[in-house]
Amino acid sequence: MLSLSYRFSSFAAYTPGPTTRSLSRRLLFLVPSQTLIFTNHSLCCLKPIKPNNNIRSSSSFSKDSPFSGLEDVFVSFLFGNRKATDVAHMVWKHVVQKGDTVIDATCGNGFDTLELLNLVVDDSHNGYVYALDIQKDALAKTSSLLEESINSYQKHVELFNICHSKMEEVVQRNSSVRLVAFNLGYLPGGDKEIITRSETTLQALEAAERIVIPGGLISIVVYVGHPGGREELETVETFAARMCVENWICCKLQMLNRAGAPIPIFLFRR
Amino acid sequence: MLSLSYRFSSFAAYTPGPTTRSLSRRLLFLVPSQTLIFTNHSLCCLKPIKPNNNIRSSSSFSKDSPFSGLEDVFVSFLFGNRKATDVAHMVWKHVVQKGDTVIDATCGNGFDTLELLNLVVDDSHNGYVYALDIQKDALAKTSSLLEESINSYQKHVELFNICHSKMEEVVQRNSSVRLVAFNLGYLPGGDKEIITRSETTLQALEAAERIVIPGGLISIVVYVGHPGGREELETVETFAARMCVENWICCKLQMLNRAGAPIPIFLFRR
Repeated sequence: MLSLSYRFSSFAAYTPGPTTRSLSRRLLFLVPSQTLIFTNHSLCCLKPIKPNNNIRSSSSFSKDSPFSGLEDVFVSFLFGNRKATDVAHMVWKHVVQKGDTVIDATCGNGFDTLELLNLVVDDSHNGYVYALDIQKDALAKTSSLLEESINSYQKHVELFNICHSKMEEVVQRNSSVRLVAFNLGYLPGGDKEIITRSETTLQALEAAERIVIPGGLISIVVYVGHPGGREELETVETFAARMCVENWICCKLQMLNRAGAPIPIFLFRR
Repeated sequence: MLSLSYRFSSFAAYTPGPTTRSLSRRLLFLVPSQTLIFTNHSLCCLKPIKPNNNIRSSSSFSKDSPFSGLEDVFVSFLFGNRKATDVAHMVWKHVVQKGDTVIDATCGNGFDTLELLNLVVDDSHNGYVYALDIQKDALAKTSSLLEESINSYQKHVELFNICHSKMEEVVQRNSSVRLVAFNLGYLPGGDKEIITRSETTLQALEAAERIVIPGGLISIVVYVGHPGGREELETVETFAARMCVENWICCKLQMLNRAGAPIPIFLFRR
């Protein structure tokens, strides 16, 4: 048997993205050196985590490539260094085209709406985002974020103060919708009593199933750390499990030892 | 509201990897244009699937890059164009270093052993793979594959006809094991009555937990289409769920509408 000389020193330093995971999600971008640890489905302590220096860096990857960093997102998620929404955004990039019409079914604080606008608006000013939320606060926050971030965004987005289950009432007939994105749970920083509910989420998923074109995607990030979250996950899983395997590919990513971690689910229409 | 001009014609053709998924796994590399469809956990029909032309190609990605194609593997898996083992191999590449010691706990027909050898053997002839299987047939097939594929592979691998639960009996004390890889179920093409079993799989996982060094990985592909497969999945999930969140990151990928599809699970030691 060989005598082995290990080359641990050859590990390159790894610079993770935002490492925060929490019930209040995006707001914790503000505390990138901390993470919330869940036990038995409830929040138990706030604990700093150290960056993992044992994962290979992709520094040899050309920064000019349109795929720069993309391959790391999934692996970084597996290794606890990326958020569920980062993985969702990565998947969107592989599906959404410039000029597309998409729906942000739960716009919340507007980060997904902004991401979607950046993905769809092209040089010829095509591309359209429908942004829905049942809370006026959420629409105000989204509007404010878009105003800060993008010039004349109004041409490419319309905000609707309506439940996601009603998306078919606002989306123009014959629209070819490439993506419907859901971020379930409650508005980060908002009233935690106002949450998406299984019954209307199911109706919204059924609407999305009717709307999304072939080659399109229903993207869902399910938050399970709050009361009703587990039930909603079950609703989404049951809905996905019965989807026709010939027309839909339904995949879930789940952290097994972090019961409260958000769960990305992707329903891709062939 | 804008009148949108869609640019669907800008989709590039997508050339998927092997699209086969089946109980007999690797052997179906031989029939890359077909897939097995599962319903109610049992095999029901053999049906051709067409390549998906709606997914963006990564043809603009430099082929010289060490990460060429890597970012597509995960997305392709989500979109039904890649096998669970491809995803496992992708993750291994982010963990395993040249010169490492690794364990193929269930070497089967030897494809994983070969992949691992390619990952660990360096120019200075460091790198070592322990390959275990409870079936002599599997070891013969592995040995034959390695002989065909790699010169003087014997210096870098040792085959053991022993249950994966006994890995600590053969691995040299003080070995720094970077990866323990499991491919559960039965030997493709072998006796389907001889399967990995929950009790010994649990012992094997416990052994792997003791052996794997920080920055290392326990990689498991669970097959659930055969009797006992679901129980074994539950054993693996229960084991992972109780792992200390401060030391282990445990992630599962699952196809929600293909009840019989293999399930990759990754237990990464921080």
